[in-house]
Amino acid sequence: MKPTIPQGTRDFGPAEVRRRQYILASIKKVFEIYGFQPIETPSMEQLETLMGKYGEEGDRLIFKILNNGLNDPKNQEKARKGFEQVLEGKNSTLLTERALRYDLTIPFARFVAMNQHQLSFPFKRYQMQPVWRADRPQRGRYREFWQCDADVVGSTALLHEAELICIYQQAFAQLQLPEITIKINNRKILTGLAECCEASERLMDITVAIDKLDKIGWEKVAAELANKGLQKNQIDFIQTYLGFEGQNESKLQQMEQLLAKSETAQTGIAELRSILNYHQQLNSTSAESRVEVDFTLARGLNYYTGFITEVSTTAVKMGSIGGGGRYDDLTGLFGLKNMSGVGISFGIDRIYDVLEELNLFPSSLKSSTKILLVNIEPLAEQQLYRYLNRLRAEGIAAEFYADAAKFDKQMKYADKRNIPYVGIMGSEELNEQLINVKNMESGTQQKMSLEEVIALLGNA
Amino acid sequence: MKPTIPQGTRDFGPAEVRRRQYILASIKKVFEIYGFQPIETPSMEQLETLMGKYGEEGDRLIFKILNNGLNDPKNQEKARKGFEQVLEGKNSTLLTERALRYDLTIPFARFVAMNQHQLSFPFKRYQMQPVWRADRPQRGRYREFWQCDADVVGSTALLHEAELICIYQQAFAQLQLPEITIKINNRKILTGLAECCEASERLMDITVAIDKLDKIGWEKVAAELANKGLQKNQIDFIQTYLGFEGQNESKLQQMEQLLAKSETAQTGIAELRSILNYHQQLNSTSAESRVEVDFTLARGLNYYTGFITEVSTTAVKMGSIGGGGRYDDLTGLFGLKNMSGVGISFGIDRIYDVLEELNLFPSSLKSSTKILLVNIEPLAEQQLYRYLNRLRAEGIAAEFYADAAKFDKQMKYADKRNIPYVGIMGSEELNEQLINVKNMESGTQQKMSLEEVIALLGNA
Repeated sequence: MKPTIPQGTRDFGPAEVRRRQYILASIKKVFEIYGFQPIETPSMEQLETLMGKYGEEGDRLIFKILNNGLNDPKNQEKARKGFEQVLEGKNSTLLTERALRYDLTIPFARFVAMNQHQLSFPFKRYQMQPVWRADRPQRGRYREFWQCDADVVGSTALLHEAELICIYQQAFAQLQLPEITIKINNRKILTGLAECCEASERLMDITVAIDKLDKIGWEKVAAELANKGLQKNQIDFIQTYLGFEGQNESKLQQMEQLLAKSETAQTGIAELRSILNYHQQLNSTSAESRVEVDFTLARGLNYYTGFITEVSTTAVKMGSIGGGGRYDDLTGLFGLKNMSGVGISFGIDRIYDVLEELNLFPSSLKSSTKILLVNIEPLAEQQLYRYLNRLRAEGIAAEFYADAAKFDKQMKYADKRNIPYVGIMGSEELNEQLINVKNMESGTQQKMSLEEVIALLGNA
Repeated sequence: MKPTIPQGTRDFGPAEVRRRQYILASIKKVFEIYGFQPIETPSMEQLETLMGKYGEEGDRLIFKILNNGLNDPKNQEKARKGFEQVLEGKNSTLLTERALRYDLTIPFARFVAMNQHQLSFPFKRYQMQPVWRADRPQRGRYREFWQCDADVVGSTALLHEAELICIYQQAFAQLQLPEITIKINNRKILTGLAECCEASERLMDITVAIDKLDKIGWEKVAAELANKGLQKNQIDFIQTYLGFEGQNESKLQQMEQLLAKSETAQTGIAELRSILNYHQQLNSTSAESRVEVDFTLARGLNYYTGFITEVSTTAVKMGSIGGGGRYDDLTGLFGLKNMSGVGISFGIDRIYDVLEELNLFPSSLKSSTKILLVNIEPLAEQQLYRYLNRLRAEGIAAEFYADAAKFDKQMKYADKRNIPYVGIMGSEELNEQLINVKNMESGTQQKMSLEEVIALLGNA
């Protein structure tokens, strides 16, 4: 049997796991410095928790788990009924009552509603877990992938928005990711735009069309708007809206005038100004990342109601590597009303690709083992064990090649494993109480005492 | 809608996540010091990769994923056929072609077979991931739980067994888990026992019966053996086998005599002696853990062929917290022959329970946030932001209470969150350029400069 893995899933070898863990650990550190706390939810949720939360397309892409024991005679009749319901496109707990997590937001909302009496609000949580989607696999799109979210729920204070922007900046600075732009906007301004061109009932169409501006350009956006029934004067107004340039404050002032008639828009503009003001006071990073008001930012079909944000780097060709926003009623779906939330998400897979393309992963991630002690002189074995014990006791990852293989094979092993140093002890070194340490990158060799080896590798 | 989670699954709040991460990080550190490398495999495997690998019971307990798009007219006929097959108790890729990981060993074997040309052998890997089993949930048994394994594949050297014992000792020492006993045995000795009492064809029955000795006692084991058709003299011989006491070397010598006729047993005894010898040279921990030859150790239905081990603590009433062994042909199932492997597993859920019962989790895990700056004096806000920035820049996790809530509410928040210090800045402190720092545990308060706060919390 020639084994394979399911389409759209991936095995991660040692180098990949270390690199992913480096990304997650870097972000986690920043989350914690800002007072966010980790939670984890089960991979499976009740099917009814997930269904209907991600639109029709989402419902189709949720992985459902077959109930167990269907072939048990006492279950067969029900199972058959459930199967017929599924064929009709309905859900049936008779066939499947559980499903795999589709994102981290709905499980988080469910968690908050279920644990509301144990939690202290505002509740600032982060969560780093895989999610599953039955999407058609393609380059950069997987059926199992990690999400990495931070959200604050139970506070409307705009300081949180500013802190989340700082978290983006600090995390990307930590990862040394260059040329970061953090775009910010406010859904209230988009609402105001729809109001001002007298197309409030077309708000979602306008939002969805604007969201495509980057990808398809203005001509096609205009065509789509016309297609949705907007008149030329309305489309012209939207074009003016999308055309503002300049510094953040200048843009905000232009928008204040353009959308003077909409109270909602004025609130949105005031919120952005307030967020920028908080941000200025809180941002202590020397990162080169820019925070840019961008009225063309729309965030598509998402359920945001206030602040929205999206992060990208211009250093490589790549879509957004993060995004988020505020939603007024996150937990209402699960019976807990009046809980405003604001959150951001990191696109781990894309961040991985960017770091790799720019060669920004620390070289120390290539191997955790610092030295391989080769096994060529049986008389030296006991001495090598003593060295091994001491190195490990000092916290230095060290290996001994246990099989009595040829020297070349052992060296090849060290090389393939990216182990930076090899320690060789023949009869000569044994007599001298030294070990011959080869630097695998430079190829140089040097006889050293155990203490010298510890000094060398303890700092490596 | 009142939300719930699937039976047998768990949400983990911040304290639980931190404690679990503490356990995993402690073990991971030891794995790496011994040269083990991380891999991760997908949560889903092809159904055929898993089926038939865990016995009939296992096959029933595997969670299967429903294929997507069953209600699409062009899939319905096939789906119906697949459903009928499933009702007959067969697998059908027409209805379900994927399943959730049931353990980490089979996916590891599949990984090695698939990636054999990229890997360097011996391949020493560790893996910490959740697995899923449709077992009936009960106290301490979940449908989603973490496994944590380390295995070496591609070497028959017994040094690996000794290193794995050292890993157990060092990891449990790291976690400060007291009264650890590491029992070791060898399946070859059990094979020899079956040979010597002329019941080789009953080897599995004998192994399974002996495995129950701890739980049901000798009388019932003897009854089970009789039930399986063993004669009184055979059962007496097994009783003698199980009765040896004393130091490890003394036990080994007694066994050498009892099973003198079996070459297989002699090989098993020699292997144990060799492992103990390596272990003596490699063990550098001052841990109190004992390594004990225990011929009653059997490891039930598992597919081990040589060394076997099991770890427990006598400090609390709890089953084994780890176990493992050597298997001659791990990857043969997937077409890669002659790959001997040896591995161990940590029982994360039980280790968690033991640490909790013994109150051994470091108190620093209660909160990552070190200080909450309360928000009571609007004039102090800007100054507090400066403090906040500086603390965070020093890597000290700090929060500002963003909403203008009552003082009591803010203090309650800090208390409930287990934040150890609260910083208060009223108009007086603002004038003095100081901050009033309250130790939440002792209740004492002290005015400090920012530098003093950093000195206090940087070491906390």
